[in-house]
Amino acid sequence: MRPFESTIPLTEAQDIIAAATAPLDRTETVALRDARGRVLAQDVTAPGDVPPFARAAMDGYAVLSADTARATRDTPVRLRRVETIYTGQMPVRMVSAGVCSEVATGAPMPEGADAVVMVEETAADGDSISVFAAAAAGQNIGRQGQDIRQGQLVLSAGTPLTVSRIGAIAALGHTTVTVYAKPRVAILSTGNEVVAPGEPLAPGQIYDINSSTLAAVVAEHGGEPVVHRTAVDTLEDLSRAVDECLAEDVLVFSGGSSVGTRDLMLDVVRAKGAVLFHGIAVKPGKPTAFGRIGGKLAFGMPGYPTSCLTNAYVLLVPVLRRMARLPDQSIRVERLPLASRVNSTPNRHQFYTVRVENGRAVPAFKASGDITSMSQADGYIEIDANTTAVEAGTMVDVKFF
Amino acid sequence: MRPFESTIPLTEAQDIIAAATAPLDRTETVALRDARGRVLAQDVTAPGDVPPFARAAMDGYAVLSADTARATRDTPVRLRRVETIYTGQMPVRMVSAGVCSEVATGAPMPEGADAVVMVEETAADGDSISVFAAAAAGQNIGRQGQDIRQGQLVLSAGTPLTVSRIGAIAALGHTTVTVYAKPRVAILSTGNEVVAPGEPLAPGQIYDINSSTLAAVVAEHGGEPVVHRTAVDTLEDLSRAVDECLAEDVLVFSGGSSVGTRDLMLDVVRAKGAVLFHGIAVKPGKPTAFGRIGGKLAFGMPGYPTSCLTNAYVLLVPVLRRMARLPDQSIRVERLPLASRVNSTPNRHQFYTVRVENGRAVPAFKASGDITSMSQADGYIEIDANTTAVEAGTMVDVKFF
Repeated sequence: MRPFESTIPLTEAQDIIAAATAPLDRTETVALRDARGRVLAQDVTAPGDVPPFARAAMDGYAVLSADTARATRDTPVRLRRVETIYTGQMPVRMVSAGVCSEVATGAPMPEGADAVVMVEETAADGDSISVFAAAAAGQNIGRQGQDIRQGQLVLSAGTPLTVSRIGAIAALGHTTVTVYAKPRVAILSTGNEVVAPGEPLAPGQIYDINSSTLAAVVAEHGGEPVVHRTAVDTLEDLSRAVDECLAEDVLVFSGGSSVGTRDLMLDVVRAKGAVLFHGIAVKPGKPTAFGRIGGKLAFGMPGYPTSCLTNAYVLLVPVLRRMARLPDQSIRVERLPLASRVNSTPNRHQFYTVRVENGRAVPAFKASGDITSMSQADGYIEIDANTTAVEAGTMVDVKFF
Repeated sequence: MRPFESTIPLTEAQDIIAAATAPLDRTETVALRDARGRVLAQDVTAPGDVPPFARAAMDGYAVLSADTARATRDTPVRLRRVETIYTGQMPVRMVSAGVCSEVATGAPMPEGADAVVMVEETAADGDSISVFAAAAAGQNIGRQGQDIRQGQLVLSAGTPLTVSRIGAIAALGHTTVTVYAKPRVAILSTGNEVVAPGEPLAPGQIYDINSSTLAAVVAEHGGEPVVHRTAVDTLEDLSRAVDECLAEDVLVFSGGSSVGTRDLMLDVVRAKGAVLFHGIAVKPGKPTAFGRIGGKLAFGMPGYPTSCLTNAYVLLVPVLRRMARLPDQSIRVERLPLASRVNSTPNRHQFYTVRVENGRAVPAFKASGDITSMSQADGYIEIDANTTAVEAGTMVDVKFF
């Protein structure tokens, strides 16, 4: 057995990872209906005006505003209706002095008219329309190109596609959009004891949790998980598995990053590339490695499920979002009193899971090997490396999963 | 033309909608890898202990703690190594007084041993192991069932499946999970002027924005969007379209809910069911209708894209999340100074879009018909019905999209 190498502070690990990470340049064209959460790879400019014609913004009557100048409820102006214009239909009559056209909201404005009087300010007697209020020029008209002008830059490359931005692209008539590719993340659980869910367990074996949690984290933060079959602890199998995973942008393996003699995975990474660090002064998640193989990033996560998932949130999520060109994760934080004292290991930055009960942060952490440390928690608090205990009643920032 | 009916306050509209909404009871079984964001429909209890055996929590030596009681760095205790136990492999030798077994993290504990001494507190000379520190009974051992005990309730029906809860289900060896069905939402854009993106525009026509934005909102909040072909403004076409949409749980149509003579959609809903309200004192989104047809909910959204999408957030999202049994939406709010004065229509609760620039909320609202009112905004502020203006410099709560 080799004793554990020295650890580096969390911030140093984060800096090393950030320096090795670059946004992906690869693009792909996707259907607009599948584009939510993706990031635009091209500027989107308008091929035409939106709306492509001036339209009524209210149900009512298209008029010459000058005709209505003296209209009041007591002394209405009477105009003759020459046409009724529904939506989707072009007007055929012109509006001139003394006449008007009935218009539905969204219908094209007739030539000549420069205002719309809303129906509530009118009364109709056959084709004789009484107008009860003066209309200002331009009133209740949506101008041609009011929303978007032909040639206008509607959305810039690099913009994340929210719901309303998808709407703006639909407004231009597009059905597809060119976006940056998602980072593809190979997920590889290693260890003789690790068995995929659904298979029978032999004595000494446990189910693979990390493939499921890592795949979910990757999908949640803009990546494409590619789960590899579990590899056993032989140089040959691990080496072959890593080679297969190098088809993707990022390799995340779990297990095999501690110091047992059979922790061969680090040797495999060293043989194919470089280990940039091994060991971080955090808890959980100390035996974590990071390296590069060719142009690909390789994370070696601890096998323990809570260690692995904590590190996925702390180290992997920023990488995914940066590669995917997504903005930083928005974490919900609430300041709550701690329900009972928490001890913290000296010289390790601790991520300590808590449950929120009756407005208090209740310690939920059991052990790094226990997935229930996280599945029965709502979030976590951070305890810095110099703090050895946080007393009950202390106000803490709970960061929600 | 029929003048607009009286409006009801927003809160009254929300109450009517809430009273008509119930969580779905329908369930389905999905692959665990697709279960993120779904809601458990059955209690999950553990078929066995996790871990299924006592295991070493550290790389080191499994010992009888009593053997090490007097060990110090200067006066180490020497033990004879009788076995090396790797992960995934069952021990064959017992640990008794004077002997130890080397263990890797996660390997099964050998019989007899009651503690693990970490490798950093030992030195090996062949099979002679020097122990430099006393071990307490139970130290560095993960007990059988420590994470989850056989028969334990691991997750209750009704629990949303976060990443770590998916991990807890994987820990039990399951590959599928029974969840509540997603509410299926039929989306129907109506109006002669409305054309699906990708088709050519005739004069007087515009592209359908609402199908894209509504589908995206539905998908974002736990529903399954089912986009129907656009319907034209004839009783026959609208009636047939509504009948087809009634296969789903919720019907959301847009357009045809204002007061033009060709606004036939409300007549169709009345003929098949009941309109529960028509007209809300909000801006944008006033000409909004809500009704029931059989057991199905029907929303009539304004055709204007910003009105439609605002109402989708305010009225539809709570329905979707309740039907899907998801917790209320968590909206990010920041208190920021308003960059310039905003006027608000009296007697209407206003949702006013803003962009965040240099730490200030900059008004972004153009018109209800302009999707750029939202696509160029980061969020919105709310202005209550009794306020007619908000002055520059006022601190406002910006709610982010």
